[in-house]
Amino acid sequence: MTIAAAFALEPRYARRLFPAESRVLFDPSIRVLSSEPVTDFLDPARTDDLAEVELLVTGWGCPALDDVALERMPRLRWIVHAAGTVKGHLGAAVWRRGVVVSSATSVNAIPVAEYTVGAILLAGKRAFKLAADLRAARTAMVADERYPGMGNYRKRVGLVGASTIGRLVIEYLRPFSFEVVVADPFLTQADATQLGVRVIELDELLATSDIVSVHAPELPSTRNMIDARRVGLMRPDTTLINTARGSLVDHDALRRRAAAGELSLILDVTDPQPLPQNDPLYDAEDVLLTPHIAGSMGTELERLATAAIDEVNRIARGLPFEHPVDGGALALRA
Amino acid sequence: MTIAAAFALEPRYARRLFPAESRVLFDPSIRVLSSEPVTDFLDPARTDDLAEVELLVTGWGCPALDDVALERMPRLRWIVHAAGTVKGHLGAAVWRRGVVVSSATSVNAIPVAEYTVGAILLAGKRAFKLAADLRAARTAMVADERYPGMGNYRKRVGLVGASTIGRLVIEYLRPFSFEVVVADPFLTQADATQLGVRVIELDELLATSDIVSVHAPELPSTRNMIDARRVGLMRPDTTLINTARGSLVDHDALRRRAAAGELSLILDVTDPQPLPQNDPLYDAEDVLLTPHIAGSMGTELERLATAAIDEVNRIARGLPFEHPVDGGALALRA
Repeated sequence: MTIAAAFALEPRYARRLFPAESRVLFDPSIRVLSSEPVTDFLDPARTDDLAEVELLVTGWGCPALDDVALERMPRLRWIVHAAGTVKGHLGAAVWRRGVVVSSATSVNAIPVAEYTVGAILLAGKRAFKLAADLRAARTAMVADERYPGMGNYRKRVGLVGASTIGRLVIEYLRPFSFEVVVADPFLTQADATQLGVRVIELDELLATSDIVSVHAPELPSTRNMIDARRVGLMRPDTTLINTARGSLVDHDALRRRAAAGELSLILDVTDPQPLPQNDPLYDAEDVLLTPHIAGSMGTELERLATAAIDEVNRIARGLPFEHPVDGGALALRA
Repeated sequence: MTIAAAFALEPRYARRLFPAESRVLFDPSIRVLSSEPVTDFLDPARTDDLAEVELLVTGWGCPALDDVALERMPRLRWIVHAAGTVKGHLGAAVWRRGVVVSSATSVNAIPVAEYTVGAILLAGKRAFKLAADLRAARTAMVADERYPGMGNYRKRVGLVGASTIGRLVIEYLRPFSFEVVVADPFLTQADATQLGVRVIELDELLATSDIVSVHAPELPSTRNMIDARRVGLMRPDTTLINTARGSLVDHDALRRRAAAGELSLILDVTDPQPLPQNDPLYDAEDVLLTPHIAGSMGTELERLATAAIDEVNRIARGLPFEHPVDGGALALRA
């Protein structure tokens, strides 16, 4: 017995994630209909593949899986998504039809959490501000006379959102001496205790943390969650790290406080993205802007591919997914 | 019975490390002769204190403890150093007289290793180069089309020196997917296996690592250890991190390769330190220069103070030091 499989993602990701060398890692019972990914579910040239397909391996750039698309895939039983969130392309029709879905959310969380921890450890040292100071002064300086509060020892790190990524950041921070506090309306005190953190209100988190890192999903309820008032709550010298979505934070307020030299910013995402060419954030001191690189990139795509192949091979062996997606819980997640 | 104690370190460190609030944490049997630190062992005003002192708590800026100084402290039995290396101020006379020494080397290693891990995690993402690219281009970019080899997954990190700091970096890197290799003439294969790393020759380490971090001591034998030839071994796109000493690396070779855009540099120490005002490294792209901040700074001084107070209180309770310094092994260490 074989399982008919097809790919549906941007061709450049398909080439990186599933080249011939990795396709041989699929269980022999997985019959890949074509190495060419589907990029349009209505493409007449793919009608035959879609009529047969039981397993769809998706990734960034997968077209919407709505009723019209699913009509053309009557035998579809499984979707293995080799990237983070499935919200962009999986419609209600998928859940209604009982298609079983796996996502690499937890695998894609790894590089984001790594970027965040790197940013936290250097921000605690005020490395970016001091690098700018050193470039300007070009002379010996006693860093902690300038910034007596610098240092990573017993600093408070405030995580906005106990998401998959937020929880991994908590785990990665464990060897260090930070006090980690979390604001998340869905995190119970019992869960927090198990994670070794304390749940506090977002306002208090912003007002008391030395470093704030955003790990909340983009939802109607989280849009502009850190609004101008809340940006104003952060004490001078606070570092704000955002690897989630730019829309969660009021960027005009960020611009004002960055221009006043009051906040350190490490922004991997912005609103809009990219920023307009004349945006003052490009030139503000103590602002590190990176072009949305925290998620899986370069060699990290291999990890996504390996995880997806593992999930596919679990189907072949009759096992449940290791990373199933619960369609019902999606409303609250990234 | 009481133990007569005095401080010997730069007054500004004494104020930060041992203010009245922390001095109360000493065991009641520790009789601090004066809260004023000794800054000159020949100062006639301190003759009486020195004649009595049994325990000297030292730190950055402690004057040399040579024969002349020790003559004035006939009752000295213990030295607790609230900083890293004791090589700068402890002469052979200390060991000859059987003074027992403790140093906070392992405690001071923590912030250096934290800085290093932060630098590694962001360097693997090419965050500094991409931040410069983004500032120049001010437009959306697909980072891993520019740098297909970017990403932290399964990258090789080469540590030069299995020092206290080097070993702590190994420990902190454990949750991540790096392959860690170490070059150290004194690290045995058996020790390396226990640490979960592989020992390789320095030349091979430089030629094959994606990220190189220097953790070797400054010794006559390590001066210019990474000379121009060895700087030339690093492949384009390698990141070199130096938190140890500038003199270990040939800086003219670094300048040439940084100017050619071939190396990423994260330098917390340089040669000379600071660099001359017109040094091209200040303006080179993809060079992060910080003003010697990796060691204990700001809040991290509290950790040093706590560790020193713990050691002092072990004396009071008749316990051996937790972090004794072996005078004989010092020749090979920082």
